Amino acid sequence: MKKRPLILVTNDDGITAPGLRSLVKVMNQIGEVVVVAPDSPQSGMGHAITVDDTLYCKKENIDKGPQTEYSTSGTPADCVKLAVNEILERKPDLCVSGINHGSNASINVIYSGTMSAAVEAGVEGIPSIGFSMCDYSWNANFELCEKYIEIISREVLEKANKRKVILNVNFPKLSKGKNYKGAKICIQAKSYWKENFDKRQNPNGRKYYWLTGKFINLDKRKNTDQWALKNGYISVVPIMYDMTSYSDIDEIKNWNINV
Amino acid sequence: MKKRPLILVTNDDGITAPGLRSLVKVMNQIGEVVVVAPDSPQSGMGHAITVDDTLYCKKENIDKGPQTEYSTSGTPADCVKLAVNEILERKPDLCVSGINHGSNASINVIYSGTMSAAVEAGVEGIPSIGFSMCDYSWNANFELCEKYIEIISREVLEKANKRKVILNVNFPKLSKGKNYKGAKICIQAKSYWKENFDKRQNPNGRKYYWLTGKFINLDKRKNTDQWALKNGYISVVPIMYDMTSYSDIDEIKNWNINV
Repeated sequence: MKKRPLILVTNDDGITAPGLRSLVKVMNQIGEVVVVAPDSPQSGMGHAITVDDTLYCKKENIDKGPQTEYSTSGTPADCVKLAVNEILERKPDLCVSGINHGSNASINVIYSGTMSAAVEAGVEGIPSIGFSMCDYSWNANFELCEKYIEIISREVLEKANKRKVILNVNFPKLSKGKNYKGAKICIQAKSYWKENFDKRQNPNGRKYYWLTGKFINLDKRKNTDQWALKNGYISVVPIMYDMTSYSDIDEIKNWNINV
Repeated sequence: MKKRPLILVTNDDGITAPGLRSLVKVMNQIGEVVVVAPDSPQSGMGHAITVDDTLYCKKENIDKGPQTEYSTSGTPADCVKLAVNEILERKPDLCVSGINHGSNASINVIYSGTMSAAVEAGVEGIPSIGFSMCDYSWNANFELCEKYIEIISREVLEKANKRKVILNVNFPKLSKGKNYKGAKICIQAKSYWKENFDKRQNPNGRKYYWLTGKFINLDKRKNTDQWALKNGYISVVPIMYDMTSYSDIDEIKNWNINV
């Protein structure tokens, strides 16, 4: 009998988040599950790592499932590093991160703690998937996602010998009674946040700011993640961490900075 | 007379870091300078943003230069958002970040607060440059960099109408008496950190970890940033924030996840 795959589960909303519990439930069907997740919410942490501070790690027993669980005081990327280098006895066959409460599609990928964990696993040579639900509610219904999460995860495991990928998977928010139209392989839409800072005063009279913003997508292409999500599809974007802008290279070679 | 360019200066080592003071000195030669930088070190913060907490901002008067300065309680990416949306009267012509105390070449770019500030400026449509010195010493000698920083910054400003870029510029650590061999336009080397966690006990007997690691570069190509730095050149890598792995798209379209 083929050995059951070892699956690392993490997230950025913290170890008790309903989205993570849902992901653990699905992964228990597929393999041997170890959870290493932040002990508190880490949204918007991007690819932060803890370089100048201590990291605590604690064994947890959150629900009755067969999985093993640990919480850490670190960021999502720290959780992956700690899991791979200290906690797990061997390199996991798959790392899944999420299910995030909120979108990580298009520009959100660069701010996302969920996706930074998936990218960190990719850097370590582990196939990985970040799952996110475009619904910020803590009580979002994750049940309909579960079937798709299982299909996608099994396929990434199946194909890992041929090609190791990092996937950014987003589920659209559904209207009541609707179901997903299926999954689409997409590219990252060109979008941005138009920020607005709410200005307030603390009880001591000191001014502070609170970041708010409006999501702007001017990308009209039909192969983007935003198009898929807007049209009821699950978006699947393969991710890489080579940030070189190859299309700029030739132009810049002619600039007077080649001193 | 042409109006002097408006230049936003930030970093991740904090507003008092010698690297930032050096960068301010150069930028004062080029344009009107506004500094908006973290009030404390933010190394390894990646593209973190403050979404669930307050942001404070304070006017500073750190040296006698003509620049205007503000410190914030936020991350490098927060500093750029706050500067562009709240502090500056118009969109800056250039954003420079650094000079970072330590390398942001190759894989370090994904963990780098310095580069996340530059990328955030790029998302806002501002040409930007992250400068880093491959020397972790707080008292590194930044003087030899300054000539190159001025040349590169003036050229990025000059060419901004034609093409807005985000550059990741790293200066190699020099042996005594040596100078830079020049600048090379490069691609990001494929490298990674082999982590190691130092295990310790706190005064109450609780175990904690401290992240350490060894940088591994197996990339033998001669057009990478690591090659340039190792051979005494300044590395200049153009950066983009579309994380789509285009080379995976066709392959994955044939997988059974297109349910």
